[in-house]
Amino acid sequence: MSDAPDLAAVKAYLLDLQDRICAGLAAEDGRAAFATDEWTREKPAASAGPALGGGGRTRILADGAVFEKAGVAFSHVTGAALPPSATAHRPELAGRPWVALGVSLVIHPRNPRVPTSHANVRFFSTTGPAEPTPPASSDLRHSDFDIRNSGASEAPATWWFGGGFDLTPYYGYEEDCVHWHHTARAALDPFGPELYPRFKKTCDDYFFLKHRGEPRGIGGVFFDDFSALGFDRSFALLRAVGDAYLPAYRPIVARRKNTATNDAERDWQLYRRGRYVEFNLVQDRGTLFGLQSGGRTESILMSLPPLVRWDYARVPAAGTEEHRLHADFLRPRDWAS
Amino acid sequence: MSDAPDLAAVKAYLLDLQDRICAGLAAEDGRAAFATDEWTREKPAASAGPALGGGGRTRILADGAVFEKAGVAFSHVTGAALPPSATAHRPELAGRPWVALGVSLVIHPRNPRVPTSHANVRFFSTTGPAEPTPPASSDLRHSDFDIRNSGASEAPATWWFGGGFDLTPYYGYEEDCVHWHHTARAALDPFGPELYPRFKKTCDDYFFLKHRGEPRGIGGVFFDDFSALGFDRSFALLRAVGDAYLPAYRPIVARRKNTATNDAERDWQLYRRGRYVEFNLVQDRGTLFGLQSGGRTESILMSLPPLVRWDYARVPAAGTEEHRLHADFLRPRDWAS
Repeated sequence: MSDAPDLAAVKAYLLDLQDRICAGLAAEDGRAAFATDEWTREKPAASAGPALGGGGRTRILADGAVFEKAGVAFSHVTGAALPPSATAHRPELAGRPWVALGVSLVIHPRNPRVPTSHANVRFFSTTGPAEPTPPASSDLRHSDFDIRNSGASEAPATWWFGGGFDLTPYYGYEEDCVHWHHTARAALDPFGPELYPRFKKTCDDYFFLKHRGEPRGIGGVFFDDFSALGFDRSFALLRAVGDAYLPAYRPIVARRKNTATNDAERDWQLYRRGRYVEFNLVQDRGTLFGLQSGGRTESILMSLPPLVRWDYARVPAAGTEEHRLHADFLRPRDWAS
Repeated sequence: MSDAPDLAAVKAYLLDLQDRICAGLAAEDGRAAFATDEWTREKPAASAGPALGGGGRTRILADGAVFEKAGVAFSHVTGAALPPSATAHRPELAGRPWVALGVSLVIHPRNPRVPTSHANVRFFSTTGPAEPTPPASSDLRHSDFDIRNSGASEAPATWWFGGGFDLTPYYGYEEDCVHWHHTARAALDPFGPELYPRFKKTCDDYFFLKHRGEPRGIGGVFFDDFSALGFDRSFALLRAVGDAYLPAYRPIVARRKNTATNDAERDWQLYRRGRYVEFNLVQDRGTLFGLQSGGRTESILMSLPPLVRWDYARVPAAGTEEHRLHADFLRPRDWAS
């Protein structure tokens, strides 16, 4: 039985995952629906910067009863030459043509008692040797998401999966954090008990605002460059993580969405959302790579909150719930033991 | 007569400029006052990252009648070794100890008919050869802004001025743009008629959002690495630019601050402020250098707007004033001929 990468299967899974997540979130919202924006990006002329092509299906729910803004994006992008920055672990791949498929989402709820969540699952593959002969024009048919499975003549040189999900509360609830991390651990344990602790630490390390010296939220799991189990099992792991997102998040939303709140809590939420903007625009590798490489700005910045505030040198008073968020939740903790 | 750099004179000018600008803006506001936050940053242990020391006097006006947030910051920072990234034009200076003094300000008005403005003036100097012997501890007295004039034994190896001001309207008024640029040109013309066009182009080139393909605003003047006129005349040029900011901005504020407005215009202002955040966090060299080198986060991010919104794929309808901002104002134009 073949264990070769199957791009068509990955694509079908990702499109279905996007459908299922949007349906689940819309049902939880109860009022607003997702609007779909399909887009394509033609490969620019060779002289006009990095040769990127691709397309996507961006779905946005705005002004919902529960979700102030929810963006769930499928995209697949191809490039003529992998930049060295994308291949720190695999320098031998620089310069090769590549394809990336993924689903990425950020959910900004209205009620400050409901945490923001982020997830993404993605597949990355080089599709040939460096400096290939110019492809025939039929190889650039991205408008219909025509990712053909690789035949013998162009077997992917190498490939990997990446992804995960993390949670960003404005007010801390221990049971929510425990549920979030337990769901992540349960998804990963069938693939090896060492994976959850490893991916949890990767998540804590990555979602840390260096200039603030604080974590973005209470973490979750995150992995990259993953092909260790071969294609079939690694893809199964990706599906397990993708499928776990909604069961991890939706019960928390359901439990908190009707909590009474007030203007001061809303103000705190808007202020804390500033940290999300700072992380995504200053540090997030995917965001910066996308913006700098000529990606589609609106789809990349879909992750930014709908409304945000910055205050100078704001420090919550000791003993408040806002202070407790910093002291008790915004630090790496073992939530799933 | 000596034409040697005079750090004490630069410092005295900058502190006085900060006083005058804050007084002028507070008078224009009529309700709120600036609060002062003096801070010092001890030089960290050599093992704890870049050796940065310094202090500053950050002034913030919040929730004014006219200004929603106005930040005017004086700072002086010293470093043990100039990073290569700061010396692209002068690679021979990498590794030297340095000092930087400056006033930087960003003003976010409440009424969408009043434009946002930004200005900064700064002096930068290396203070010795690379890899010096460790300084005596008395050399680290920053808490009282003790910038001593350089004596013969530690004459600055080299130095330069930089700065300028630029304007970011939410609604375009040609007469405001003309006044802004004419004031800049009048300040610079005594130093050579070629300077305004050159500094105007530098400003247009710098304040351009690459990922949006659009200018941040209608520009102004901006210069860096400037020592061409010798210290005395270059310092006079810096003062001319610093002194021109308030006469350039205040009449525009006075003219627009009582303009009738509405929620839709406020919404547009909050949306356009997102571009300001994107520029400062993704592109602005000073912001990123500050955050990455361990600068004081609250003073650096003082520039961010008090309230901001992001909407997915928002495009103003043809024929509206919002559309006219993009079409007629957010492109390089000759405003001062």
